[in-house]
Amino acid sequence: MSEYSTGALLKQINFPQDLREKISEDELPQLCDELREFIVDVVSQKGGHFGASLGVVEMTVALHYVFNTPYDKLVWDVGHQAYGHKILTGRRERFHTNRIYKGISGFPKPTESEYDTFAVGHSSTSISAALGMAVASRLKQEKDRQHVAIIGDGSMTAGLAFEGLNHGGVEDTNLLVVLNDNCMAIDPNVGALKEYLTDITTSHTYNKVKDEVWHLLGKISKFGPNAQAIVQKIENGIKSTLLKQSNLFESLNFRYFGPIDGHDVNYMAKVLRDLKDIPGPKILHCITEKGKGYQPAEEGDTTQWHAPGLFNKDTGEIIKVTPKSPQPPKYQDVFGHTIVELAEKNEKIVGVTPAMPSGCSLNIMMKAMPDRAFDVGIAEQHAVTFSAGMAAQGLIPYCNIYSSFMQRAYDQVIHDVALQKLQVVFCLDRGGLVGADGPTHHGAYDLAYFRCIPNMIVSAPMNEEELRNLMYTAQADNHGPFSIRYPRGNGVMTAWKTPFKKIKVGTGRRVKNGEDVAILSIGHIGNYAVQATETLSKEGIEVAHYDMRFVKPIDEILLHEVFSKFRKVITIENGCIQGGMGSAVLEFMADHNYRAEVKRLGIPDQFIEHGTQDELYAECFFNEEAIVTTVRSLLNTTENKALA
Amino acid sequence: MSEYSTGALLKQINFPQDLREKISEDELPQLCDELREFIVDVVSQKGGHFGASLGVVEMTVALHYVFNTPYDKLVWDVGHQAYGHKILTGRRERFHTNRIYKGISGFPKPTESEYDTFAVGHSSTSISAALGMAVASRLKQEKDRQHVAIIGDGSMTAGLAFEGLNHGGVEDTNLLVVLNDNCMAIDPNVGALKEYLTDITTSHTYNKVKDEVWHLLGKISKFGPNAQAIVQKIENGIKSTLLKQSNLFESLNFRYFGPIDGHDVNYMAKVLRDLKDIPGPKILHCITEKGKGYQPAEEGDTTQWHAPGLFNKDTGEIIKVTPKSPQPPKYQDVFGHTIVELAEKNEKIVGVTPAMPSGCSLNIMMKAMPDRAFDVGIAEQHAVTFSAGMAAQGLIPYCNIYSSFMQRAYDQVIHDVALQKLQVVFCLDRGGLVGADGPTHHGAYDLAYFRCIPNMIVSAPMNEEELRNLMYTAQADNHGPFSIRYPRGNGVMTAWKTPFKKIKVGTGRRVKNGEDVAILSIGHIGNYAVQATETLSKEGIEVAHYDMRFVKPIDEILLHEVFSKFRKVITIENGCIQGGMGSAVLEFMADHNYRAEVKRLGIPDQFIEHGTQDELYAECFFNEEAIVTTVRSLLNTTENKALA
Repeated sequence: MSEYSTGALLKQINFPQDLREKISEDELPQLCDELREFIVDVVSQKGGHFGASLGVVEMTVALHYVFNTPYDKLVWDVGHQAYGHKILTGRRERFHTNRIYKGISGFPKPTESEYDTFAVGHSSTSISAALGMAVASRLKQEKDRQHVAIIGDGSMTAGLAFEGLNHGGVEDTNLLVVLNDNCMAIDPNVGALKEYLTDITTSHTYNKVKDEVWHLLGKISKFGPNAQAIVQKIENGIKSTLLKQSNLFESLNFRYFGPIDGHDVNYMAKVLRDLKDIPGPKILHCITEKGKGYQPAEEGDTTQWHAPGLFNKDTGEIIKVTPKSPQPPKYQDVFGHTIVELAEKNEKIVGVTPAMPSGCSLNIMMKAMPDRAFDVGIAEQHAVTFSAGMAAQGLIPYCNIYSSFMQRAYDQVIHDVALQKLQVVFCLDRGGLVGADGPTHHGAYDLAYFRCIPNMIVSAPMNEEELRNLMYTAQADNHGPFSIRYPRGNGVMTAWKTPFKKIKVGTGRRVKNGEDVAILSIGHIGNYAVQATETLSKEGIEVAHYDMRFVKPIDEILLHEVFSKFRKVITIENGCIQGGMGSAVLEFMADHNYRAEVKRLGIPDQFIEHGTQDELYAECFFNEEAIVTTVRSLLNTTENKALA
Repeated sequence: MSEYSTGALLKQINFPQDLREKISEDELPQLCDELREFIVDVVSQKGGHFGASLGVVEMTVALHYVFNTPYDKLVWDVGHQAYGHKILTGRRERFHTNRIYKGISGFPKPTESEYDTFAVGHSSTSISAALGMAVASRLKQEKDRQHVAIIGDGSMTAGLAFEGLNHGGVEDTNLLVVLNDNCMAIDPNVGALKEYLTDITTSHTYNKVKDEVWHLLGKISKFGPNAQAIVQKIENGIKSTLLKQSNLFESLNFRYFGPIDGHDVNYMAKVLRDLKDIPGPKILHCITEKGKGYQPAEEGDTTQWHAPGLFNKDTGEIIKVTPKSPQPPKYQDVFGHTIVELAEKNEKIVGVTPAMPSGCSLNIMMKAMPDRAFDVGIAEQHAVTFSAGMAAQGLIPYCNIYSSFMQRAYDQVIHDVALQKLQVVFCLDRGGLVGADGPTHHGAYDLAYFRCIPNMIVSAPMNEEELRNLMYTAQADNHGPFSIRYPRGNGVMTAWKTPFKKIKVGTGRRVKNGEDVAILSIGHIGNYAVQATETLSKEGIEVAHYDMRFVKPIDEILLHEVFSKFRKVITIENGCIQGGMGSAVLEFMADHNYRAEVKRLGIPDQFIEHGTQDELYAECFFNEEAIVTTVRSLLNTTENKALA
């Protein structure tokens, strides 16, 4: 049994069937309170996403109350709001293991539960996925099955969501889109759609028309006593035809309902029940509040309460461990401060983020120079092509996108930037294993998928100073597309604000001399190599270490030095070993006919689950210990077996 | 001088300034006729895209007449409709070299002309790119500069276009979107947006509201003689506020104008001139007809006239060279017929294409089993996630996307399919160099970018039989995501309809025994290796040849055989050599400590221009001759220099 406060009603619910059978409609509000309290209790002690799940407590309860899950399919978009769903679907007792190594995932995951219909983590997939399920049900003649995509207004800004609506509107399926409108992505939502949703919520459009009509009809009142009634009829007529047809979603052939209060669980259940009987694609617009029901979150900074870390649930105080000595900064903050420094001197520099101003720290520039920093919404594709357009007119955009989200803009990088050799600087935050967010968020592939693109410079700094110097180098001359990837978390330098120096593109550096074995590392993970070589030094084993800095162009002079001298080489990267930096080294060897024993360390060819970064580095065998072990093992190997 | 019919007005125009200075408004229709005739004349003799450029002749003339190009920026979406633009902007004399090796590109290309503001080829980039340019102008204080994105209704279905609108609607810039609405992509356009555009064009919405209001107001007429005038006022009031606000584009904060006749050049010029003075984001909806002004195209099959090949311009007869003997089929047709054969026996199979039914031959299935084949519009991301949704419910989608367009759905492949190990069969048509469409369309990267994805099977058939057997294998058992890539053009078997046989996943085959040198090929390009080994055989040089069939999982038993026996190995792939099949072979060697001299042939690390496939294979050095040369050169090399 878990030690977390589990209310009397919540205790009775192990699966949604319990909810439907044991809980009366009158008890739903109490159940929502209990569910909310349980989430607050666990998350305050264990961490995790917070605001989003609190905001959909009533929605979650209503959906499982009305729909016959798991036969009916709920598809949660993004999925960090699905904590309530997890708790109601067999995982209450395990919920305290959320996001912990070997524990349950922070996102819906079909291998974890049949109630999790679709793996998720990136945004805006739910409409397409639910539509696919709905079409499958139609083909399988399962006409009674319902399919519900629950998507936030932030996620709705991504093109994929629009593509799903455009197709969904012409398929005759049982598809319900629940639009969870809280005016937020992680940061406040932006863009025209958000303004539109606010507009229809506050009824400006409708009210404006009503006022206009009233004004015009005012003159009619003189014609007789029935005028007011007639005016009423006209209004109803306009409302029922034009207003409905005028709706953005109705334009795309979805029947639009709402907006309704997403925190009134009984009304929500009633509306959902009604909608079950209406065939075809439909959308229910619900207004919710992130952090609802927990006063500090309601009144505080919504972005901060998205994933606040640990907090005192009674006082709402977020627990911050103050380190005794100064700590190295987060890489993201080095980016955020450095772009402002550079932009102050180079007026061509602009910053672009797709909905991650606080996550990537572009918010520092957005505050310092609001005209030159753009949050374009959850829209990675647009972020890149928009950057390309600016670069085509001589600006130098720094387009900051998490490594795993950059997958969304892969074509735009190739087709709109690299092909034209435009000077766009891609800053890939969260490169490598990210930790608790798990497989959807690990930035595992970027070194491989960028390395095959012509004209692309692929670099990764080993520390804060290198990050700053790479950012400086990227704007000092026009090298065309220039990517700089760095990991989630902190660097290694407390005095990180070093003076800028150009780094010659395509050059690495020797960190340490040595014999017998050379280590080639790329990026921050090189610091583990430093630790490993120090450990080995103490045993009298002197291993050479090179920080490659660039995967492309790769430093051929350095590699000639290495392969002329060493017969045993270890490559280390916090990225997939298929096609990554290690492969680049092998290609160099083949092209120059070098022969050496090369051991590649990196992320193996499988999806890596969640855990702390250290746990995952150990699992993937590229932490300090793994490097030491690999060096020892290489020193014990005999020469090549095939052609010895 | 070109020998093509160049009318009296057209002759005077070398650049748009000539158009603006020498041509009076009255002469514009005649100029359009001459421009159209020139396009018909050249394309009928030289080939190329056709229908789209004819459809925008008036739009092209009006845009360059009204806007101060190249200071003002025109961004053509996709770009195959930009022939008129090319002819008016300095390239009339070279236009007959269109799409020919070393000739001008079939798409806008900034390195070719300053009037080509943005490189293009894939769809739906224009709004984002033009917005980027517009924001750059704003930051540079060039407030008089105009930025125009010209985008088709087909391109408007892609998520990227929506992302651009969502951002564009909240930026105060001189951005005009010209919506070229012809109800077509290459095939007829599909989806809810298309229905909406048709709806507002035929004024159903507006008329319906008007009828309703008239009906309701009918009763008012009895109140007096002024009633009709009052009704008129009400109507105008409704029109000016509600109808405008009700528009889909107005919802996204673009001022909407139209629809107007896109073939009335004078009216178009007038409207464009008016719009220049209206600040902020705006959209002009123009109705055009693909193939306009050329009777056979207007009356014939619009899809066929998209790019008809050569034709007799007088009769409209499309010239088809009938070969004397039966020819091997196109790979795309083998796909099209085979999916129907498989789907007849396996009811789980469905087909998905993003707007390429005729291009990938899924139209065969769409005709044979319309319920089970889906054209989802230009929406690669949705095509993949929609497929994932269907697969999550037990169907087996064959999702056919051109290799270069698959770049658009890269995240969806990783995040929505591979992570869940769903049984989606990715058929990548146009893998490798595609020929005349050039660098935007070459399918150069898929082997590299798919190979680094866990769970993904990466295969490529050497001929029709292998394509059929891979397609059969992919559905016979559940292997998870299974990709099959094949090139543009014809295969090698006239009797291609072979009985189905399972291929063991991850196995290649030995095509030919030999000594000293082994060739490892993947896909159709292996047939060049066959020709090369036959040529060498005649000289007494017996070279071994293996058809790998799978890049992932790679056939380790076969590779152990190869590297135990051969010290010289050539890998050949119609794909980029960074990270591709050759790299997979090098990784195998490193992992098993094999040493051999390996020469990798494939697409070098640069963007390859347009030309015939044969010309490009020669340029990239992996045609028959290149293979022969490489074998000879390998036979002459001495052993490893570094560690000999």
